[in-house]
Order: sequence, then structure tokens, then C-alpha cells
Amino acid sequence: MATLKKIPLVLMGCGGVGRQLLQHIVSCRSLHANLGVHLRVVGVSDSKSLVVASDVFTKEFNDNLLSEICRLKADHSSLSTLISGECQVFLDSDLRGKLSEIASLLGTSTGLAFVDCSASSETVEILTQAVDLGCCIVLANKKPLTSTKEDYDKLVSRPRRIRYESTVGAGLPVIASLNRILSSGDPVHRIVGSLSGTLGYVMSEVEDGKPLSQVVKAAKSLGYTEPDPRDDLSGMDVARKALILARLLGMRINIDSIKIESLYPEEMGPNIMSVEDFLSTGLPLLDNDIGERVRKASLNGNVLRYVCVIEGSRCTVGIQELPKNSPLGRLRGSDNVLEIYSRCYSEQPLVIQGAGAGNDTTAAGVLADILDIQDLFP
Amino acid sequence: MATLKKIPLVLMGCGGVGRQLLQHIVSCRSLHANLGVHLRVVGVSDSKSLVVASDVFTKEFNDNLLSEICRLKADHSSLSTLISGECQVFLDSDLRGKLSEIASLLGTSTGLAFVDCSASSETVEILTQAVDLGCCIVLANKKPLTSTKEDYDKLVSRPRRIRYESTVGAGLPVIASLNRILSSGDPVHRIVGSLSGTLGYVMSEVEDGKPLSQVVKAAKSLGYTEPDPRDDLSGMDVARKALILARLLGMRINIDSIKIESLYPEEMGPNIMSVEDFLSTGLPLLDNDIGERVRKASLNGNVLRYVCVIEGSRCTVGIQELPKNSPLGRLRGSDNVLEIYSRCYSEQPLVIQGAGAGNDTTAAGVLADILDIQDLFP
Repeated sequence: MATLKKIPLVLMGCGGVGRQLLQHIVSCRSLHANLGVHLRVVGVSDSKSLVVASDVFTKEFNDNLLSEICRLKADHSSLSTLISGECQVFLDSDLRGKLSEIASLLGTSTGLAFVDCSASSETVEILTQAVDLGCCIVLANKKPLTSTKEDYDKLVSRPRRIRYESTVGAGLPVIASLNRILSSGDPVHRIVGSLSGTLGYVMSEVEDGKPLSQVVKAAKSLGYTEPDPRDDLSGMDVARKALILARLLGMRINIDSIKIESLYPEEMGPNIMSVEDFLSTGLPLLDNDIGERVRKASLNGNVLRYVCVIEGSRCTVGIQELPKNSPLGRLRGSDNVLEIYSRCYSEQPLVIQGAGAGNDTTAAGVLADILDIQDLFP
Repeated sequence: MATLKKIPLVLMGCGGVGRQLLQHIVSCRSLHANLGVHLRVVGVSDSKSLVVASDVFTKEFNDNLLSEICRLKADHSSLSTLISGECQVFLDSDLRGKLSEIASLLGTSTGLAFVDCSASSETVEILTQAVDLGCCIVLANKKPLTSTKEDYDKLVSRPRRIRYESTVGAGLPVIASLNRILSSGDPVHRIVGSLSGTLGYVMSEVEDGKPLSQVVKAAKSLGYTEPDPRDDLSGMDVARKALILARLLGMRINIDSIKIESLYPEEMGPNIMSVEDFLSTGLPLLDNDIGERVRKASLNGNVLRYVCVIEGSRCTVGIQELPKNSPLGRLRGSDNVLEIYSRCYSEQPLVIQGAGAGNDTTAAGVLADILDIQDLFP
């Protein structure tokens, strides 16, 4: 048996997705050994602390320690409470410095994958630094890629060293497929997508004649929405995904260049109304309007979908009236759908559809990304 | 500007797909330069001849010569008629030896991609040899991968060095997506696919009540079928694709382990009946039976589709009755569809749909595969 190729990695963020990723790494040991690869976890951080293997060149967190970290984080404990002779703990101000030290030690020697499963906008600095130091970066976190154009350019300056499949559609092969199409010289001229499972569910329920307010409350109680459903209804999450796709197609835009339709008016915003007031008092005021739009669309044989549309130099996010019998029109429930139009897929689009949320699926997408960069490691 | 990474390649087969690939390579020069890559074509072969750059270490076919090869092949001329001081021509018995010489010269030095766009079952020997000599191989040709288990094992013995997206669904990201899912430890337990544009078209037309014989004749006159439509109707082409997918999932089977339903009976086979007799006399005898099956399915709210099903240790190819409102049931026309069921995609499948045939799309898939192995080149 040949020796395994070792891929050292540092995980930032070990909440839902990050924790699931560690579990996947442990449970995939023999599978990955068959593929000739060993993922060597040398550091894990949460928002306040970083634990690092005692010697990042030769040591790693063994599977017991990784499982212990998963248990800790499932209990919402801080990483800093981890007690083990195999690792050192760094806190707050020392955290950033230690991360860049590891990047500089391993980047051009053994190679290093920085994996960002946080939801922080603060990681962009260490990620750009890591790229400069020869590391690879893998992101489930949308924030760094939807920062300024300057940050984006730095992150993608070495296109082979970055993967970010799970920022759009969780594990759905969206970015990988677009990269294939683009690298084959097939120009993508239009993307239409339903990229929010929550809003997909909401729109297909109101299509059946249910009032928006009831549908949102039901979605919240099913756990489909964020704790404050306005985080979904604002369209901001979809806009971030749209921006990532638009930039991949070469558009030089920022998040504020995107026309975003929020499903609630400003006067019902989080600074003005509590979640409870929004659900009980605000939201019902919107029922009639959306109900009317659904009926009007239906008279044209159409349905309403909350979609992103990227075409030419235009990127918009909001409700669109679409043919009932298009892939997007047929969409029911919380699946994501993406339609890609290019020279090769001109009349009928390339369609990618499936579950686009969930920690398991998102972490699986991150893991596939890590395996995908293995050839960059010595 | 950093120097471009050079990927030397030898193309075997320059009929429809291969010729289109050469055109894509030429038209993508500046795109690929932006990606930091230059594809250096050092050899091209058709069934009878091989042309090779005068010095495979330093020279390449320039874009004029590549365009000249495309013109030659569009005229159905032999490569051996190419006249140029920049290359040497090798014929018949010298061809194989020269190919393996190039593989051995470049495999472990500059790296070399062997690209098989032929439809030959004879290339498997040189491809397995090329893998042993350190080359990468990229296939649009299904035959080598559907040969014996021993040949298959040799071809995939270095899994990072082989790509074969365009063998299934042309440029559709089927193999790439399955590889992502599998490498993330998400076990695929069921694949259902409509992988023949021709049979997809035929089944959706007979669903509308048209007689099979008329539909097949129309498909032939539209250029949707092979010159002998029985090559499509036999199901053998779909079975090869199914075998490639089944083997990717780890099934240790051969083509003769697959239960294949042919749409015509043995007594109408090519050894017994001419194409003309089959179309005028044979095929109409099948109209009633298939019409009856369509009606029966319709009574259950179902439709008939010609699909491959891979599940457990079972791989079958033939007509299946499927719910009208499933992704496969909704399929109209010649698009391919693949439904993948796994742990992450358990209730609703991951669906990939789009044009699954055509030289342009197939060659684009090959080109994306070549770009995908760039990290293996020095």
C-alpha cells in the first residue's frame, strides 16, 4: 500500500456545519484511505478560541479528540474548555496571530487547507493572508466572498487554490459545474435560480392559496426559517449567493449593486418591530397583496417564485412570474433549483436541482471540495 | 504575467467530437491563458494515421495546423494527407508504437494527457499503457471503460489521472458530481436516468399517442438516430453508460451482467433485416404493443420512459413505468436526466438535466476534463 497523501487542515467555525464536517472526516477515514488521502486536522477554532496540535508539522488531532470537540460544540461549550495534552489553546487576541503563523509554517512546505465554516465577516483577512502564504482555502462561509471587490480579487487570485461549493446550494454541484462550463469556453449568458429552501417552501405554499402569514409561521415552527424569519424574507441571503455566482461569471459588482426585493416593507424591519409583533401584527398586513399577485400570475398560467436572475450586467433578486411548466415553476417544497443557459445549453437550460440546505449536505460539499484540491498537496 | 502551465496532449480520434475539441482548444487560447494554462497539442490520430510534432518535448501543432486538421477531417480525408514540415506522419503498424513512445517520453517528465475521442474498442491497450507510464487519460469514448473488469481496473488504477465526463450525458456534470458525492462519504444507493436523447424523444412522442414506427422514422429524418436506428433502439448505448455509472459506484460487473430490454425483437436484428425493411415492415409490427403499454401506464397516472436503474447490486436498462410528475416523468424531448439518491438526497433526489448529446457539448465536457487535471502537470 502506498503512503497516504496528507492534507493538513485548519477548521474555522465548528458550529453546525463545521461540527458535521469533523464528524464526516472521522467517519470517512477508511474511504479516504482507499482514495490515497488522509485529512490531518491540525487546528480548530470557534469565535473565541483556537486549539492547535502540539506540533503542526507532525502531529494532528486524533479521532477521539475530534469527537470530543464535536461533543463540546453540541453542548454549546467553548473550545477553550477542551482539556488535552495533545493541543494548545489560544484565546482572543492570540488567535489571529497563531492562525497566520500556522499558515506561514505550512503553506509552502506541507501545504495547508484553511476551511471556513463560520458565518463571520472577520475571516476574510486571515483567508487572504493564507492565500498569499501558499495555502488553499475552502469556504462554506458566504461573507468573505461577498465582501468588497478588492477582498474578492485577493481571495480568488489563485483560482486553483480556492473552493466554495457550499456557499451556494449547500452540497449541490453548482460552482463545480459552472467552473467546468466556463473553463471549456462555453459562455454562460443567463442563470435563474431558486436558492433559498425557505423561500421556495413559502412561495409554493402561497401558490396553493394559503395566506403568507400562516405559511411563514408554519415554516418557522417546522424549523425552516432563521429564528427571525425576516433574515430569510429580506432576500439578503439569496443576494449573497447571487453575488457569488455573478462574480464567478466575471461581473465586477458589489452586494449593493444587486436589486433586492424584500418580502416585508422597511417599517416592519428588525429595528422597528420585534419578531413576535412582526409575526402577529405586521405579516398579516401583507397577505392580501401577495395573494393578489399569486392570483394574477395564475390567470397567465404562471406561478410566483423568489429567484435570482443573472443576465448580461444585471443581477436581481426577488419575486418573478414564471411559466408553471418550467423547471422553476414546477419546483415544490424546499429544493433548490438552478437553470444555466449557455451556448451548449441555449434552448433548454442545464438544470441542477436538489436539497440546498442542511448541515449534513453542506458539510459534504465542503469535504468534496477538500478532496478536490488534493493534487495541490505534495 | 507568470509563465503558462503547459499541458501536452495527444488526441486519438478526430471525427465529430475530436474535431470539435481541436476547434474549442484554438478558440479558447486567450481564456485558457487567463487561467494560466496552455494546451500543447503534440499528436493527433485518426483510425489509420498519427501525426506528431517534430519534437514532442518543445514543439506543438500551431493553431493554423490544428485548423487545417479540422478542415481535412471535415472533408473526411485521412490525416495522412496532411502536408507540413512541422510534423511527422506514422501509419498503421507504426502508429501504436509511436503512441507508446510518446507516452514513455513525456509521461513522467512534462506530463501528457491522452485524449480518446474515438469510438474504437482498440484504444484500451494504449490507454492502460499510458496510465502505467505516468500519463493522464481523458475519454469521451465509452468502449475502453466498458471492456472487461481487468481493463477497467487498470484504467482507473490512478483515479486522479483519469477523467471521462463525456462518456455519460455528453457535457452534463454527471461523473464530476457523482465523484464529489462519493468522495464526501455520501453513499449513493440509487441512480435512475434517461441517458439517450434519441430514446427520450421516442418515448415522449409515443406518450402523445403517435405510433412507434412513425416516431422512429421522424427521429431518423431529424438526424436524432444513428444511421441504423436499431443501434439506439437496442439499448446497448444506454447499457454502456449504465455500466460506467455502476462501476463508478463500485459494482464489479460486466456489460453482460446488465439486463437490457431491446425495443425490437431478435428476428428484426441487423443480421436478418436491412434498415429499410426494418423501418417499413418490421417496426410497424411493434406499434400496437408499445401503444398498449403507453395506454396502460396512463391509466395509472404514469408514463413510460427508457431508463437505466442502478440500485443495490442490480443494473437494468429498459422501459419503466414512472410517475408523470417525477423529474423523469416530466421529461420531454431529447434532454437527458439523472436522478441520484443518497444519504444527503434521500427523499428528493439530486437531479441533473440538460442536453446530453451533440459534438459541441461533448467536446466541451472533454475540455473541462482536461482543465480539471491541470494540477497534475509540473
